[in-house]
Amino acid sequence: MILRINTRTRTATTDTSGAYAGLGGRALTSRIVSREVPPDCHALSDENKLVIAPGTLTGTTAATSGRISVGAKSPLTGGIKESNSGGIVSQKLAKLGIQAIVLEDKPEPNAPLTLIRVTKDGVTFEDAPASGNMGNYEYAKILDAKFGGSAVCALIGPAGEMCLKASTIQFTDTEGRPARSAGRGGMGAVMGSKRVKAIVVDDAGAPGVSYADREAFKTAGKRWAEILRSHPITSQGLPGFGTAILINIINEAGALPTKNFRSGRFDKAAQVSGEKMVELIEKRGGKAKEGCHVGCAIQCSQKYVDEKGQYVTSGFEYETLWAMGPNMLIDNLDDIAVLDRLCDEWGVDTIETGNALAMYMEAGVIPWGDSKAAIEMLKKIGARDPLGRILGNGATYVADAFGVDRIPVVKNQALPAYDPRAVKGVGVTYATSPMGGDHTAGYAVCQNVLACGGNVAPHSKEGQAELSKNLQVATAAIDSTGFCLFVAFAVLDTPDALQTICDMLAARYGSPVTPADVVALGTQILQDEQRFNEAAGLGKASDQLPRWFRQALPPHNVTWDFSNDELQAAKV
Amino acid sequence: MILRINTRTRTATTDTSGAYAGLGGRALTSRIVSREVPPDCHALSDENKLVIAPGTLTGTTAATSGRISVGAKSPLTGGIKESNSGGIVSQKLAKLGIQAIVLEDKPEPNAPLTLIRVTKDGVTFEDAPASGNMGNYEYAKILDAKFGGSAVCALIGPAGEMCLKASTIQFTDTEGRPARSAGRGGMGAVMGSKRVKAIVVDDAGAPGVSYADREAFKTAGKRWAEILRSHPITSQGLPGFGTAILINIINEAGALPTKNFRSGRFDKAAQVSGEKMVELIEKRGGKAKEGCHVGCAIQCSQKYVDEKGQYVTSGFEYETLWAMGPNMLIDNLDDIAVLDRLCDEWGVDTIETGNALAMYMEAGVIPWGDSKAAIEMLKKIGARDPLGRILGNGATYVADAFGVDRIPVVKNQALPAYDPRAVKGVGVTYATSPMGGDHTAGYAVCQNVLACGGNVAPHSKEGQAELSKNLQVATAAIDSTGFCLFVAFAVLDTPDALQTICDMLAARYGSPVTPADVVALGTQILQDEQRFNEAAGLGKASDQLPRWFRQALPPHNVTWDFSNDELQAAKV
Repeated sequence: MILRINTRTRTATTDTSGAYAGLGGRALTSRIVSREVPPDCHALSDENKLVIAPGTLTGTTAATSGRISVGAKSPLTGGIKESNSGGIVSQKLAKLGIQAIVLEDKPEPNAPLTLIRVTKDGVTFEDAPASGNMGNYEYAKILDAKFGGSAVCALIGPAGEMCLKASTIQFTDTEGRPARSAGRGGMGAVMGSKRVKAIVVDDAGAPGVSYADREAFKTAGKRWAEILRSHPITSQGLPGFGTAILINIINEAGALPTKNFRSGRFDKAAQVSGEKMVELIEKRGGKAKEGCHVGCAIQCSQKYVDEKGQYVTSGFEYETLWAMGPNMLIDNLDDIAVLDRLCDEWGVDTIETGNALAMYMEAGVIPWGDSKAAIEMLKKIGARDPLGRILGNGATYVADAFGVDRIPVVKNQALPAYDPRAVKGVGVTYATSPMGGDHTAGYAVCQNVLACGGNVAPHSKEGQAELSKNLQVATAAIDSTGFCLFVAFAVLDTPDALQTICDMLAARYGSPVTPADVVALGTQILQDEQRFNEAAGLGKASDQLPRWFRQALPPHNVTWDFSNDELQAAKV
Repeated sequence: MILRINTRTRTATTDTSGAYAGLGGRALTSRIVSREVPPDCHALSDENKLVIAPGTLTGTTAATSGRISVGAKSPLTGGIKESNSGGIVSQKLAKLGIQAIVLEDKPEPNAPLTLIRVTKDGVTFEDAPASGNMGNYEYAKILDAKFGGSAVCALIGPAGEMCLKASTIQFTDTEGRPARSAGRGGMGAVMGSKRVKAIVVDDAGAPGVSYADREAFKTAGKRWAEILRSHPITSQGLPGFGTAILINIINEAGALPTKNFRSGRFDKAAQVSGEKMVELIEKRGGKAKEGCHVGCAIQCSQKYVDEKGQYVTSGFEYETLWAMGPNMLIDNLDDIAVLDRLCDEWGVDTIETGNALAMYMEAGVIPWGDSKAAIEMLKKIGARDPLGRILGNGATYVADAFGVDRIPVVKNQALPAYDPRAVKGVGVTYATSPMGGDHTAGYAVCQNVLACGGNVAPHSKEGQAELSKNLQVATAAIDSTGFCLFVAFAVLDTPDALQTICDMLAARYGSPVTPADVVALGTQILQDEQRFNEAAGLGKASDQLPRWFRQALPPHNVTWDFSNDELQAAKV
């Protein structure tokens, strides 16, 4: 059932119409948004809806299936958005039998913030405890104390309360820390516009998920776990060093964007590498390996601690490390950790915010490489200072405040940690994904650099559009299951992996599922999203990188040379 | 000839290729921009060009022909822009035989500001005198002193220097005051991105314009002057009270947007009416009637003076009065005058900035109706304060900083002083003009409210698309001649007026011109502009008003009810 919450009247209704039966995760968020939200509405208006949906396999015993999708019209891109997060809210919603929570309507802008609590007995509403300029960590503790340790929640920080475009929804992890983030596209601003500070989910007494064929699920689930345990990336690379292992790899490939995408190589990359990070963590007594949700077989996260062994942040992704590091010429891991933590505190996307800070450097407001100045600037979001509001609205917004024209965005969303000129497949994904500049939407880094799932030469245009398209379809489908995208490394290289996923879906729901069904689902999701975007004004002209990517990128002196027409081949 | 100035190398070249022969004003700016500027470039990048062009009849003896067109890709709308101004630069350029100045390329962002001087002997470049936080009035005086009273100029203020999206290019009037403004679309930011502070034009010893048939021109010009002298609007209404005469008329029609477009009637309209303004000016010894350029037969401007008789500002347009008055619930003419003056000082568009200030009120940052708070906020642009940068970037930008979703813009440009629900013809123009929300692009207020050029009921959809389209075509043609748009009042109601314009063009250039040629020119201009916008990403989805205009507007409880498809009928 779908839980529809009217945020103006503070009432909840249970939608058991079955209109969206069989859908989960991104398939569900994008279907509801594309059907129910007018594409030309303002993203902060009462007509937008925020959809929070576990995947179709979330809550089951399938390994690494606990991700959550958050969808809405994005205040950042103006198009449709699905933002994906870890944390443990997703599994609890699934166990409560909740297919999705849909936040609808909105109260007056100065209405009190709402705290929503969802249990097996229903939904309750109350005024949220005052947040002042409190960050998410402190606020999560207040909720935790209030609800006696069962406050698993989705919450927004000051940035979301201010409705800023880079704002996230943070999800608490197994230890109650709000360290997991639906980061991209300003989903926190949509929640903030509806004056919802937090959704607390308690699954005590929940029925749990049901299985059409428990035994068949068990068999398939076992094989699934084996598959993840057998692939070198999911069993060694990611658990060993997290995604930060990519710093050295991508730097070596000449694709690590440095100083706002001026070079593909950073001479101090080693100082911010995954290897260095793990070495530090181990020396200081942190935790080098951790899952973002219960039952993850990959465990690519960490607990980063300071010199005194005190927790700073839940290990950073490669993209965070890059955004707060090489792209700003910052080479100090401890400062990067503080920047990451502050992003989680205020609830802003690390990729967008790192790029936005780079715009402040581009404008000369703070010096390149000055991590302390970056930290001070980032603190201004929590202080609700005008410069912080500017920062929290993302890269283009900062650039516009200071006349900067070198802005690495697609559909107004800042680009992640792979220079599209040196990894052309992911460049095609940036340009054509309905999500805007996003690596996860079609991670061609696999075939372009990691020799996973095949080999496609990264500097040539050849084959990239088809590669990106196939990956975008597959990713959309994976994002509907609740599986972490990282399972794709194993799936791409394991012949029976896709069939195993089909077997799990069939055993869970009782209808046969074929690989062709999975492809059809992925295609359908992208079609829903593209149709929405087209009507929202994001057509073919928006499917392109900024023109300055035509300039050559050292060290390989590669350029971006796709025409808009060529790029259309990557769309479904 | 066309004067092409490379702002990076500080060199000028004379383009006598004749590639744009016969074009002037908006026809020329839009043709050059659509041919030479990549639609997907960043508006502040080296690939954008700023084109400043007198009209085809500017510099002649034809009455009211001294307007100037400024064109570029707009930093505000992201589409093509023509912004039209008075002042006396235009006639001097025409007399120097300069068809257009084109500013190309750009220096480094921190390069010194440039002062460009254009005389009959050529072009010189020098570092501009330091401007500090100086406003345009003081800076114009410095230039005036430097050039011995001949410093007729186009200049940018602090907003243009900061490359803000609402920034204008100010043109000096007959008394050397920089009170005339190419206001809309951020043309000042494009000039600022090229680090050009001012263009000083001296026509001493200039050849003046030539005539293919001087006698024929004289005859036609005489008839032209008669036409303007015979129509009640151009001979009595506008000279008597300026455009501010519209406050009472539009309020009476229930179309005066009040409190950010919440009502079509302002209960204190009488206090800010044209009649009241003229009464005050006359009592205080100001000047109630003045032209914006030499040889204007209409004289719709004024000198607004304070209680002590001291000059404050060159009379405000109705749209300025409205933006700084009723739409913010401000009813104090003296404070409105200060707001207008400050806009000219910093170089920001009054319509965009008034709407942007209304967004600060919408957000609760300053109280509704508090003119003193509005003045203090506006001063922050000159102080280069972050809140001033936010303000100077226009209505949407302010709204985005504070989570406001009630933003009256089309293609990101703030709407002017006619509620589109109560004057549907101008609403169609707002929605479909390549310029974004703009009344001048197709002023259906004539037929909807003023009974000029026919009668089309304002509240019905009937006939509005065709009306708007015809007016858009006619306006584009008029904007290419250098005539002030206000001649249209007389042209619409005078059978031989269009032929008289054709006769003047023929006598000036020596080739016959028919009314059909004029229509074809207007159509061609719009086609150039639409093609550019389409490629820049402003397609059909952008041709619409914000959804909240579907809410009923008191007192007539009219709503906006055009579909995007219906609106396409207004495009050429």
